[in-house]
Amino acid sequence: MQTITSPNNAFIKELKKLNKSNRYCRETGRTIAEGIHLAQELIKRPELIQQIVIRTGAENSPEVQRVLRDLNSLSKPVIEVPAAVFNEICPVETSVGLLCVITIPAQDRIKAGEDSVYLDGVQDPGNVGTIVRTAVAAGVKTLITSPDSAWIWSPKVLRAGMGAHFSLRIVCAYPLPEAVEQSGCQVLVADARGGQDLYQTEWGEEPTLWVFGNEGQGVSRLSLDLADKVLLIPIEPAVESLNVAIAASVCLFEQRRRKILSDTLV
Amino acid sequence: MQTITSPNNAFIKELKKLNKSNRYCRETGRTIAEGIHLAQELIKRPELIQQIVIRTGAENSPEVQRVLRDLNSLSKPVIEVPAAVFNEICPVETSVGLLCVITIPAQDRIKAGEDSVYLDGVQDPGNVGTIVRTAVAAGVKTLITSPDSAWIWSPKVLRAGMGAHFSLRIVCAYPLPEAVEQSGCQVLVADARGGQDLYQTEWGEEPTLWVFGNEGQGVSRLSLDLADKVLLIPIEPAVESLNVAIAASVCLFEQRRRKILSDTLV
Repeated sequence: MQTITSPNNAFIKELKKLNKSNRYCRETGRTIAEGIHLAQELIKRPELIQQIVIRTGAENSPEVQRVLRDLNSLSKPVIEVPAAVFNEICPVETSVGLLCVITIPAQDRIKAGEDSVYLDGVQDPGNVGTIVRTAVAAGVKTLITSPDSAWIWSPKVLRAGMGAHFSLRIVCAYPLPEAVEQSGCQVLVADARGGQDLYQTEWGEEPTLWVFGNEGQGVSRLSLDLADKVLLIPIEPAVESLNVAIAASVCLFEQRRRKILSDTLV
Repeated sequence: MQTITSPNNAFIKELKKLNKSNRYCRETGRTIAEGIHLAQELIKRPELIQQIVIRTGAENSPEVQRVLRDLNSLSKPVIEVPAAVFNEICPVETSVGLLCVITIPAQDRIKAGEDSVYLDGVQDPGNVGTIVRTAVAAGVKTLITSPDSAWIWSPKVLRAGMGAHFSLRIVCAYPLPEAVEQSGCQVLVADARGGQDLYQTEWGEEPTLWVFGNEGQGVSRLSLDLADKVLLIPIEPAVESLNVAIAASVCLFEQRRRKILSDTLV
């Protein structure tokens, strides 16, 4: 293990840039994966790990100790840094003190006939990451993002995904018409402004591509044009709309419920 | 309208303290409500508004202009501050530039027989606020928090609630046994560690008190002891659990679905 205490060290400066700039992550093909859950998933994808960084003292937590033992068996460089330095390279305010610098995986391809989600301008990194986690939990196989959604491999989105990024196909910054064509799925669009009642509408057993839209404006005109069905979650009029990650969970778990009850879960 | 440019002005110093310290909010009975949605709800509760603070230039947005017109009709003090000062008193990073200093409403009382939610150690302010919003959307009438949950009237929780705080009864820092006794509802506990399948379990038409637990540890032992039913959301094994606000939405909208389909929505 190497210890770096200077915030002006070249490696630390690199990490600060990765933490601050998605563009720099994209250019260099690297990103930062913070926390226990991501580390646990990355142990199954060791080829992605470049370096492991721990905050001085983090090894005192039994949880971190356990993960570090597994990480150490991969023979990757481990760098220890003091708290003041760690905080500057860490994408979240409260951290267990463990992060991995990783290679961003190559773009996946859409596979026809798989249940998918398309994010149409979802801009909050926390929402995008939470939807990744929820989609995997609900049995979705592919997640596709529009060019104007938050970048799926940003340190903040990765963190909110809690490791779920590595359990589904990810196709990022992809236009909707191509996604629809290649997926071959029926297109279900969730729209808070109006549509058929989610609970009173059948969509059959054909695979689905669900579209969820921007936090303020909702889904795009293009989504509505390409939709096979536009669906509305029936909420109380006291609130204008649901948070987009919540809306996605309500739709995806309604789909899961139907599959469980009709015994068509794959 | 008054303009304050000095960050050392006594009123600005007060606001900085409110923004930084929940304890100070509690002691003084005041909190900060940021953004358009909260302002729109507060217009219906004008007695709560103490001051309105806008960032210089915020009036240029038509959205802010519209809300300000309604706020102005209430004859409350309006204070304009430059961006650098506003950022220090604002609970969120990206703001439209509008906030209200408000009186924290008096604690509500639990009303027996109303659909309720109990937060058992939910600690992230964003999660608590999102659950408030989701609960109102799903038709829940009362939200109760445990003493160790994030404080419901903190500026960050208020903001994530998007104004929904003012559409249900809120009982905060309340012990679970008293809540169960006073609500007279059946107690349904969501537990990611195990329980009866959410979709395959009936709970009838009796009103419910749903319990959702801590982000890391889940619900407390006490919740499990007091539960009429412990329910599990059937997720894919690739993820360990759902985010607590997502889990709450899945349960509360499953309840809503049943009420809609059995025509028992109140």
